[in-house]
Parts: sequence; C-alpha cells; structure tokens
Amino acid sequence: MSEDERFGLNKGVRLMGPVKLDNGAELVPVDFAYETYGEINEARDNAILICHALTMDQYVASKHPATGKDGWWTSMVGEDKPIDTSRFCVICINVLGSCLGSSGPASVDPASGNQYGMDFPVITIADMVRAQAILLDHLEIETLAAVIGGSMGGMQALSWASIFPDRVRSAIVIAATARHSAQNIAFHEVGRQAIMADPNWQGGNYYEGDAAPAKGLSVARMAAHITYMSEEGLTEKFGRNLQDRDAKSFGFGADFQVESYLRHQGSTFVDRFDANSYLYITRAMDYFDLAEAHDGVLAKAFTGTKTRFCLISFDSDWLYPTAESRQIVHALNAAGAAVSFVELSSPFGHDSFLLDAPDMNRIIDGFLKAGETS
Amino acid sequence: MSEDERFGLNKGVRLMGPVKLDNGAELVPVDFAYETYGEINEARDNAILICHALTMDQYVASKHPATGKDGWWTSMVGEDKPIDTSRFCVICINVLGSCLGSSGPASVDPASGNQYGMDFPVITIADMVRAQAILLDHLEIETLAAVIGGSMGGMQALSWASIFPDRVRSAIVIAATARHSAQNIAFHEVGRQAIMADPNWQGGNYYEGDAAPAKGLSVARMAAHITYMSEEGLTEKFGRNLQDRDAKSFGFGADFQVESYLRHQGSTFVDRFDANSYLYITRAMDYFDLAEAHDGVLAKAFTGTKTRFCLISFDSDWLYPTAESRQIVHALNAAGAAVSFVELSSPFGHDSFLLDAPDMNRIIDGFLKAGETS
Repeated sequence: MSEDERFGLNKGVRLMGPVKLDNGAELVPVDFAYETYGEINEARDNAILICHALTMDQYVASKHPATGKDGWWTSMVGEDKPIDTSRFCVICINVLGSCLGSSGPASVDPASGNQYGMDFPVITIADMVRAQAILLDHLEIETLAAVIGGSMGGMQALSWASIFPDRVRSAIVIAATARHSAQNIAFHEVGRQAIMADPNWQGGNYYEGDAAPAKGLSVARMAAHITYMSEEGLTEKFGRNLQDRDAKSFGFGADFQVESYLRHQGSTFVDRFDANSYLYITRAMDYFDLAEAHDGVLAKAFTGTKTRFCLISFDSDWLYPTAESRQIVHALNAAGAAVSFVELSSPFGHDSFLLDAPDMNRIIDGFLKAGETS
Repeated sequence: MSEDERFGLNKGVRLMGPVKLDNGAELVPVDFAYETYGEINEARDNAILICHALTMDQYVASKHPATGKDGWWTSMVGEDKPIDTSRFCVICINVLGSCLGSSGPASVDPASGNQYGMDFPVITIADMVRAQAILLDHLEIETLAAVIGGSMGGMQALSWASIFPDRVRSAIVIAATARHSAQNIAFHEVGRQAIMADPNWQGGNYYEGDAAPAKGLSVARMAAHITYMSEEGLTEKFGRNLQDRDAKSFGFGADFQVESYLRHQGSTFVDRFDANSYLYITRAMDYFDLAEAHDGVLAKAFTGTKTRFCLISFDSDWLYPTAESRQIVHALNAAGAAVSFVELSSPFGHDSFLLDAPDMNRIIDGFLKAGETS
C-alpha cells in the first residue's frame, strides 16, 4: 500500500467543501468515510470509483466492521478480478446521507452540537456525486478511469458522467434507471411511512433515547427486499416450502420459509442501518430524474460526452427493468456517445448484480481492458 | 322483492352450523351478513353466488353503510347487466373472518363473552366456502347457477367447484390463482408485520381500548395496493407528477401524486376495515393451495367435474399473472372439464376486474346466457 495516508482501508476525512446542494443550501463540513484498494499510479489516472447502492457501504472488498461479513462485491473487486486492484486504484465512498461514517442525519450538526436528525438537508443523487468529487479533489484525482455502480450506484455513475463529463473516461451502469418511476416511488413511500409510523421514530429524534424505530425500519426493509428479488427467484428459492415444520401451524408464526427469510432480512438490517438515513436516501432516489434539468430530454444530459458507457440489465429485474436501461442507451446514442449494452439472463431479479454473475464479470473485465488500450 | 324474509338487502343470520374448520376445530355459532338482489325462482335454481375479494364486502350492488359509496361491482350486477338481477337471484356473503357482519376476530366469542381477537381460529379459503354452503342450505338453495369471483373471490369459486361439484353448474374465476406464490406470501407477510409492529395492535386485543392499529394497517394497505396496480397503470395515472406544488419540497411530505394517492388509500382503508380481519384473511389466502390436498396435482381437485368454467386474466396483472390462470386451465383440461379462458388487455393490473371492463362484461354475459340454454 502507498505511504500516502489518504489511501487504504477505513479511511475518513472531514473536508470543508462546501457541497452546494440542489435544495439551495450548502453543507459544510462534510465527512467522508471510504476505502481504497490498489495503488494510485504516478499519472493519477488509474482510479475507479465504485458507487454503492441504497443500503450498501464503502466496504466493497473489505470486512464490514459491524457485521463482520466480507465485502459486498468481492466477486468483482480484487487482484485479477474484473475490477483488478493490481491495475486500478479502486475507491468506494460511503454516500452522503448514509450512516457508515459519511455525513448523514446521524452526524453531529456543528451549528447545534446535536445530531442532525430531520434537520439534515434533503439531498439528491447529484448532491452525493458533487460531494464525492470534493473527496476526489482531496485525493488529487482529476479523472477517473471508470465510475461503476449498480442500482443507486448506477444512478450516481450516470450523474457523474453528466455533471463531470471531463472527469469520467468510462461509466459502467448496472441494473439502474435514469429516473424513478411511480411504482419505484410508491414502494419507497411505503417504507418511509412504515418508519414514520413507528412511535420510536419520534420525528427523527431517537438518537438520544433508548430505542430506534427498528420495527418500522424492518418492515420497510422487508417491503423493499421483495422488489430486489424476482417472483421466479422467490419461487425457485422458497416456493411454498414450510420452515422447520411438517404442516401449517394455523397461527401467525413464520410458517413459510419465505416469511422466515423476510423477517430475518428485516431484523438483521436494523442492526447495520439508520432509519433516518433510509428516509433520506430513498428520498434522493425518488427525486432522481436525470432528464428533468435538461428540458425532460435525457440525451441532453450527455451532450458532447466523450465518456465510454457500458450498460447492463437483468431480464428478471422488475425494479429497474431492461426497458429503463434501453431508454438510457437510446439517449446516449442520440448524444453520440460510445455505448455498449447487454441484457443478462438471471432468475434473481434486481439483486443479480450483487451475486456471482460470470457473464457480468466478463463484460466488465472486457470493457475495462478495452478502455486501457484505446 | 320476495316476501321471504331471508332475501333482500342488509340481511343477517346466526346459524348453528357448525363450520368444520381445516384446523380441526368447529366454529359455532356462525354469523352471516349478506345481500341478495333479484328473486329466487320456484325451482330455486337461478341463484348466483358472488364471492368477494380480501377487503371487499357483501355490498356488491348496494351502498356501503360505512362509506356511503355505491357497491363495488355495479358495472356487473343489476337489471340488464351481465349478472342480470331480472334473471338471477344474486347473493353475496361477507366472508368468514371479515368485519362487515359475518363471524370474524371482532365478533364476540360466546365461550368468553369477549371479542375473539387472536382467539378466533385461523381459517382457510375452504372454511369460507363451507360456511357459505351452510348459509345456502338455510336459504334452501341446493345448486348454484353460477359462482363468480375475482382475486380471493376466484379462489373461493375454484374451491366451491372442487368441494361441492354437484352444487355448482358454472364457475367464473377472474384474476385468480390456484395457490399463493412465495411472492404473494411475502407481500402479505409485510402487511401483517406492519400491523403487528403497531403498538396499538396489542396482540390483537385493541377492541376495548381507544385506538386501533391504524398506522400499521394503513402501511399494510399501501404495500398491498401497489400490487393491485401495474407499473404501466401507475405511470399512466401519476407518472412523476407533483401533488399541489410546482417544485419538489426537499422534505418528506407527499411531493408526488402517487405518494398522496397511496397515503389516501391507506388512511381511508382503516375506517372501513379491521386490522385483525386483515391478518386472518391474508393468512387464509397464503394457505391457499388447491392442489395440496390432492397429492399436489391440481387436476385431481376437479376429477369428474360437470361444472362449466370460465377463466379470465388480465395481461398487466402481476399479482396473479395470466400464467396462474393458464395452469388452472391446463388442470381443468386434464380433468376433462368444459372451460373457456380469455386473457384481457388492460393497463390497470390486478384491479382491472373491479373497473369497468366492457370485454369482461361481454364474456360473462355470454357465458351465463350459454349456461341457461345448455
């Protein structure tokens, strides 16, 4: 690892930015928690920024300190893996609004000395990206070899290419969309209402008390988790199989495996995620509509772009279906961008991008290598 | 209207049954709340039983006493309508477990003198049907000209034809399934967990207190409501339109129309529905697997049937997609049943069957008329 103290694992820094937010305010100071893997080269042009999804974190290829689990994308990131840490300096930053060390509603508001709670500003995907750019400035990385992300990470990758076209040589956008649909917003609103209905939420001021709105957050996670899996995947994995019993209980326990699984997803999530962060990040995603600031014409978000794009969708993803990726590809074509697009087959729905997907790995490997030689 | 006091509007009766439940117990007495429209003929063979969906009720073509709204299927039921009350005696019974007058968790348990709450037995779709048969016995109706239902009503119609093949001349099954999938169960489990997470739920013993678990029930309804509409329908109806404002608020109010709509769906639902009933009826639906008692072979549920079947699905219904209806049709074909099947096109998802659907009306009209002349 380099002797530059700014690079490595479990890094954090407070920068004075400020981040100029879409709501008109400025956020300052801004805390960043991030991980880097691999060495930055002398030209400082081999950095790859990985943007993480809603409930993910910067621990892309290192152990999560709270759960002790391996990184969430170890199949993709490492030596001799598609995002090869022997060739690239890989950076993953906890997004603004989250709760793993970067500024979010659980951070202390320097103005009041208390945790922000709902006084944290409502942020957007563009705000997240502008914040990341401030950290990259600090790291003296002007241009990215690539920005890569799935789901909300893909929204950030698109936004990076749109807001900072000169800083992004390649963008890989996986299982993403250029705008949240009414159905996407609806599911998120259910989750937010579940959190806000929990009396422990207390208008977001629960940090001082004994109890967080764990039940509400758990319900929110359960509802969202269904959208990350396909009907086919759920049927293949669970079907109508019973959990630890031979017959129906005629009660309200978790008779079915799928119930037990969902409850587990909900109850483990609350140990690693902050309910207010969930509110803020889902809001940012719902506000996302990349065409909005461009007269509703998505192609204008990429006018004159020199960035190479790679779009990947999954055929069983009903959260951000292939049609959404195709619209982005059409817009990129209209903007004259270099773009490749593949729909991959997988039974596992939206979450396919987090699973071991050899086809996806091969595509990303090839796309990155082509970028180095071009 | 007939002088028979058993027929007409706002009818109710307590019968001693008992209903032999799938859980092994017997339920007695059993209260029935029901509506009838049109006259029963001398042969008592012109009755049509309409089975209602999860949160619907017996007010199929008469005003709901609590909401003051017109019946939920006035486009289908009435004089000169497809289910023609000048030819048929139409009966709709509030299902067992519900809260509009038939026995359910809010009913008084004669054994204790208190409301059942969670002491009400966990029931099944078959239990609902067996209870309905007891009421039909009371009405001296041996055979039904038809049994008709959409969604959970379709599950009941299928069960009627399977359990009482000699009592059902025709069955019309709309937007239904022969078994709840893992995804179906998952969505219901989210709703149940939302209700049970509400501290006002109090283990189901909230009837004596000041407050029902309205917030939890509202969240449950919001989650379910998304599954009743298609992504396409939500986009067409709401898209990303803002509600009563020109710009995003950068807050957590209902910025988007779809949020406002969902919140309204949730908050009005709690005024007309009991949270415990929601638990019990969703459980009955999750337990539904018509093939289960027939060695997993759906066709065996209809062996030797003489009932005529009409199946209708909607192409945008992702809750019970066309593939589910097709499986039922295959099973009926294997059982040698007379069956017609149509997939209708509609952008409105599962709820299409509740909306004015001229194609559906024509199909049902024709199917019923063919049944009278055959």
